[in-house]
Amino acid sequence: MKGSIPAATVARLPIYLRCLGDLPRSQSTCSSEELAAIAGVNSAQVRKDLSFLGSQGVRGVGYSVVDLGRELRAALGLTKGYAVAIVGIGNLGRALSNYDGFAGWGFDVVALFDADPSKVGTTIGGLEVESMDDLERIVKERDVAIGIVATPAESAQYVADRFTSAGLRSILNFAPTVLQVPDSVAVRRVDLSTELQILTFYMTDAGA
Amino acid sequence: MKGSIPAATVARLPIYLRCLGDLPRSQSTCSSEELAAIAGVNSAQVRKDLSFLGSQGVRGVGYSVVDLGRELRAALGLTKGYAVAIVGIGNLGRALSNYDGFAGWGFDVVALFDADPSKVGTTIGGLEVESMDDLERIVKERDVAIGIVATPAESAQYVADRFTSAGLRSILNFAPTVLQVPDSVAVRRVDLSTELQILTFYMTDAGA
Repeated sequence: MKGSIPAATVARLPIYLRCLGDLPRSQSTCSSEELAAIAGVNSAQVRKDLSFLGSQGVRGVGYSVVDLGRELRAALGLTKGYAVAIVGIGNLGRALSNYDGFAGWGFDVVALFDADPSKVGTTIGGLEVESMDDLERIVKERDVAIGIVATPAESAQYVADRFTSAGLRSILNFAPTVLQVPDSVAVRRVDLSTELQILTFYMTDAGA
Repeated sequence: MKGSIPAATVARLPIYLRCLGDLPRSQSTCSSEELAAIAGVNSAQVRKDLSFLGSQGVRGVGYSVVDLGRELRAALGLTKGYAVAIVGIGNLGRALSNYDGFAGWGFDVVALFDADPSKVGTTIGGLEVESMDDLERIVKERDVAIGIVATPAESAQYVADRFTSAGLRSILNFAPTVLQVPDSVAVRRVDLSTELQILTFYMTDAGA
């Protein structure tokens, strides 16, 4: 079933889930129009997206917040936990180590690595920064599922290669560079300037 | 013209622009299929998106990388610079202050603020952290166009209110909370867990 869900729909599922979480606790149903307004698509697209999950909603009532939340979490694989390792303990790596938004979704940061010997052995949020020499061993021992690259661009490919050879199949890349990985490895890139560019689109609009 | 571009298309424009930047320097044209593969939509959607900019491409050849890049930058308002202020100089604020990915798009961090007196007066990347007391004055003096909220969730609304009363009309929110602002203020929220959730969607798929 999953292979047939368009990638653009998949990318919206976390946004729908976040919308549900932002609703007042007292609200038990949610219309496709409400979800559409927050996700920035039209309501027909919302209904189409959610139909891939088997959610149809009720005309004039909308979707049950509880049921839709459960279906979205199941589709996104958020019903279990994932151990996460971060390489690159600069400011961004530290921010990610302490990021409040991960734990609620089952993402558990279990290992931190840095190539700088002066950082190895220091502690961040109760976790010790470990040597890159131990990466493969620790990834296996702690059953790490996702590797986060938070290094400068010039080190990112090296880290991706190390993650890949340690057996990781999912990499989140914050470095502003394209990573080359085997087809069996999924990479998502986070570009922190993307949202700024969307803002300036609308600023130009307002100024025109 | 701009008001008629769907929000979902707008959100893809920075991705197309990044795709162009990632191409080898020697490549002068780019097909809708190449852009589609990277942006995670189908090629018909790419052609539809780019037609809003007036870009049609040439059948069998694709789009000129130089021309399409110019059109995307113009549409996104990236032909001029934007002064940016960051409030909240914890790890995330520091990471954003030093983020390599901003300057290339014309985003210039010109002011840093924190409510903690022990941080005020310290220097990050050549910029001094300033007191929240001076926010309105500095925003005006330095012609700040975009405010970034990098505080914990509990302080974010307060910062958004201060940005709004200082006259800012564009806010980028990294705090895991929904901000209430007047209709005249545009807010984009960055949730660092969104991309992790997209990764786990595909991990579940592979495991099924």
